[in-house]
Amino acid sequence: MTEYRNLDETKAFASLKACRPFDIREGLDGDRIKACTVAEAGSLAYNYAAMPVDDEIIDTLQALADEQQLIDKYKALLGGEIMNTGEKRMVLHQLTRGRAIDGLEVHADGVEKGVFYEGELEKIKDFSEKVRNGQIKGSTGKQIRTVVQIGIGGSDLGPRALCYAMGLVGPQDGCTKKIEARFISNVDPDDACTVLEGLDLESTLFILVSKSGTTQETLANRDLVFKVMQDSGIKGLVPQKHVVAVTSNTSPLAGDPDILAAFFMDDHIGGRYSSTSPVGGVVLSLAYGFDVFRQILDGAHAEDVSALEPDIRNNGVLMDAMIGLYLRNVLGYPYTAILPYSQSLHRLPAHFQQLDMESNGKHVNRFGKPVSYSTGPVIFGEPGTNGQHSFYQLLHQGTDIVPMQFIGFREKEGTLDAENGGSTSQTKLKANLVAQIVAFACGRENAQDPNKSFDGGRPSSLLVADRLSPFTLGAVLAHFENKVMFQGFAWNINSFDQEGVQLGKILAKKVLAGCGEDGKLLAYSDLLGMEF
Amino acid sequence: MTEYRNLDETKAFASLKACRPFDIREGLDGDRIKACTVAEAGSLAYNYAAMPVDDEIIDTLQALADEQQLIDKYKALLGGEIMNTGEKRMVLHQLTRGRAIDGLEVHADGVEKGVFYEGELEKIKDFSEKVRNGQIKGSTGKQIRTVVQIGIGGSDLGPRALCYAMGLVGPQDGCTKKIEARFISNVDPDDACTVLEGLDLESTLFILVSKSGTTQETLANRDLVFKVMQDSGIKGLVPQKHVVAVTSNTSPLAGDPDILAAFFMDDHIGGRYSSTSPVGGVVLSLAYGFDVFRQILDGAHAEDVSALEPDIRNNGVLMDAMIGLYLRNVLGYPYTAILPYSQSLHRLPAHFQQLDMESNGKHVNRFGKPVSYSTGPVIFGEPGTNGQHSFYQLLHQGTDIVPMQFIGFREKEGTLDAENGGSTSQTKLKANLVAQIVAFACGRENAQDPNKSFDGGRPSSLLVADRLSPFTLGAVLAHFENKVMFQGFAWNINSFDQEGVQLGKILAKKVLAGCGEDGKLLAYSDLLGMEF
Repeated sequence: MTEYRNLDETKAFASLKACRPFDIREGLDGDRIKACTVAEAGSLAYNYAAMPVDDEIIDTLQALADEQQLIDKYKALLGGEIMNTGEKRMVLHQLTRGRAIDGLEVHADGVEKGVFYEGELEKIKDFSEKVRNGQIKGSTGKQIRTVVQIGIGGSDLGPRALCYAMGLVGPQDGCTKKIEARFISNVDPDDACTVLEGLDLESTLFILVSKSGTTQETLANRDLVFKVMQDSGIKGLVPQKHVVAVTSNTSPLAGDPDILAAFFMDDHIGGRYSSTSPVGGVVLSLAYGFDVFRQILDGAHAEDVSALEPDIRNNGVLMDAMIGLYLRNVLGYPYTAILPYSQSLHRLPAHFQQLDMESNGKHVNRFGKPVSYSTGPVIFGEPGTNGQHSFYQLLHQGTDIVPMQFIGFREKEGTLDAENGGSTSQTKLKANLVAQIVAFACGRENAQDPNKSFDGGRPSSLLVADRLSPFTLGAVLAHFENKVMFQGFAWNINSFDQEGVQLGKILAKKVLAGCGEDGKLLAYSDLLGMEF
Repeated sequence: MTEYRNLDETKAFASLKACRPFDIREGLDGDRIKACTVAEAGSLAYNYAAMPVDDEIIDTLQALADEQQLIDKYKALLGGEIMNTGEKRMVLHQLTRGRAIDGLEVHADGVEKGVFYEGELEKIKDFSEKVRNGQIKGSTGKQIRTVVQIGIGGSDLGPRALCYAMGLVGPQDGCTKKIEARFISNVDPDDACTVLEGLDLESTLFILVSKSGTTQETLANRDLVFKVMQDSGIKGLVPQKHVVAVTSNTSPLAGDPDILAAFFMDDHIGGRYSSTSPVGGVVLSLAYGFDVFRQILDGAHAEDVSALEPDIRNNGVLMDAMIGLYLRNVLGYPYTAILPYSQSLHRLPAHFQQLDMESNGKHVNRFGKPVSYSTGPVIFGEPGTNGQHSFYQLLHQGTDIVPMQFIGFREKEGTLDAENGGSTSQTKLKANLVAQIVAFACGRENAQDPNKSFDGGRPSSLLVADRLSPFTLGAVLAHFENKVMFQGFAWNINSFDQEGVQLGKILAKKVLAGCGEDGKLLAYSDLLGMEF
């Protein structure tokens, strides 16, 4: 029987607060670095050597994970328990990887959900192959050469980050042809204007993504695109025939008989967890082929399975989640930097920013009662080595400590490299990553010139894998999804709703309706030159 | 006579700590919103109505600005005083706007610096016009259609953000032709691989940007590009003739007689402050024409002039800087979100992240003594409305308060807009911005369901202008540069060096040389599959 209690009601949390942090400045050495590695899916591994935790703390984190029944709750989630308590929905994104864990069946909406998601996968496979091989063409008979995803939030950040991440995928991963993928998200008309500039509409396919089918930004951008198509004067161009929808099967978008195709998700998939559903699957399959998407799903699934392990020392994502909680709730750090040493992952921090902050930026527990401890931290990040020449100054020498989560790969993904000064670029990239972890952890005193002193003691972890293959990408994605889930369980919050976005929506509607008598809305509207 | 003392040695700071924050939840109304607007350059204005400050606090902030002699120090900086104390350099980026303030002359390196920077501007004008009109062509006789900037940190983030920001510039701003601009920054070879994919080398010009001429990433990427050119087998292609350099005139890059052209900056321009020097000027002038760059300079210059005003109520950037200090040092907020409601500004937060965190992420004062108060905060951000569907959940309902800096425009920049549901996209964009400010400030209680309650009291400011013209872009850029400068003066730190990047560089070299006996470097190198 699973029980839900607040973090500060557990015995383990009280013990955790009494633990003395491990001093990485003194204690980081080669043996520790080797010992503190946990294998995850495929070649992915989590290393926490440069985190301020010792055996006592890890034992206490294990006790906390056990006391909060994190693995049991994860299993309950997989089994279809109502985990999104506020909205009374199940949480089924792990089932969108294309196969159930342990053959678990989940029935809802009159179907077995695993079967439903697999059916959508089959549709994506069939459709994407037909578009890629030219069986399905644009309305004037041209082959599709560009796909444009129109979506915002979870319908944009995850799919976009994954598409960029796979930009250099090649024959070794079964990709011999690429279709360009672009994205329109912002309601700012300048976004669509920029993306559409120079686009050959006849060979472009638009993917409209909105679970509810009512997202303001997405509908506005659809109408912008339709207007551009209608104004183009191209003979025979039928806008609807250049559009597919990804939505729930009860939404207004689903019912449009004129569009080319519709692919379905459902209310049990939160937007920020939907990258492995058709929300990410359609665009990834069109851009790189269904096989690439399938391998992403395989990686995510393998990672989901590895997260079932109860022993924290053999479960990297559980270790990551619990150390994060120690950093947040005992050491009091209000942020975490996500730093991939891979330019292809340049938008992954933006996706994980949504994933984490929207899931765990909550002030009430799952029963709606305010909590008296900190929940989700601020997440930000940019790829290394770029960040080294930017905000790392503050990370090294600022007055506050910012924990870091590094991501690195042994091999490059693309076909290009060269030597300069005795080493290749890929070797330099890795050397910098190694150097930064050690510099942050150990620092270096300069007694003569404190301006050149580094205090050290700045904690970081490292997710490392052989190569940014589709499988590894799926595993990295699921690592962070499951980390957020475990932390949410430990904090006793609902990581799957987002009521915090509602008030802004209500007030925006009020502004669009003329502000009423609200002097504040009127004054700001006036400042922005709005006329009513 | 200017004097330098730590923040906590001032009388005004003691008074400031005794002030009670203004309650924006209750106190924000139409009159306050109108009253709390400060005009800056052109149509730019700073509004601080939703900041927790009242007249008493503002008077105290004025007293603090006076006691720390912020305007005097700014004037001293303009006059060529050694403000980068650690490196013993002047700080002259304001002089790169193309004209001195009040005709101030600054002599260094055997020249009058204003004359020197103007000379470089003339070179940029001449060169960019010749490339754009086809007088200067690629080595095989093709017209230049793409420019690729190779640089990292300040040689990348600012120029890139400004180039993206000007993506929709048109005839109304004197731009009738655009040359595509791309950027290679990361030492990760996958970065260059992605950017070079599909590029017509014969019609591409590369801009190598490194002040020292020794930046590891930039030299590695240069060699990658040269290799690709040499391997291309294109007859008559002379790599050197597709390269210009932006560097200091004493650097190794400056001496290459074979390259097409060299443009100079100097040691008195920090990388993160170099967007208005040739570091940003060459690529912007090539991409959009020198006139567009000139207007950016004009906007920055006008903003620099407006920042000389001693009265905080008439100096928006001084107000912004001092309120930021109040948020950081009295209210204790460790971060600030930068939220432009403009997709064209999507990389501006990344530039301001460097600008702020690299400048003010310091733990010692300008004399090298550790300070006992917080300095620069963590900066992060994404454009609205995108962020509303992402991390705003935490900003609205998280357990911590994150101050916000909004940026908005009355008009769109591009040519495209459409109606949907009774309003245009641009109107929706502005309505959302208005709604968010008010929702964050005032909140809304829901006694029945605390999960739907918004505490409010979440402070924000708004930078607003008519339109994202080149002039306005320059003004916004200078606003943030000068904000960082004023805060650095108030904290008594040197905002113009970056010693925090050095230890990582030293250790990376050690790793590339085989790690020596260092067990830590060896173990991490082993984890990353490096062989020695």
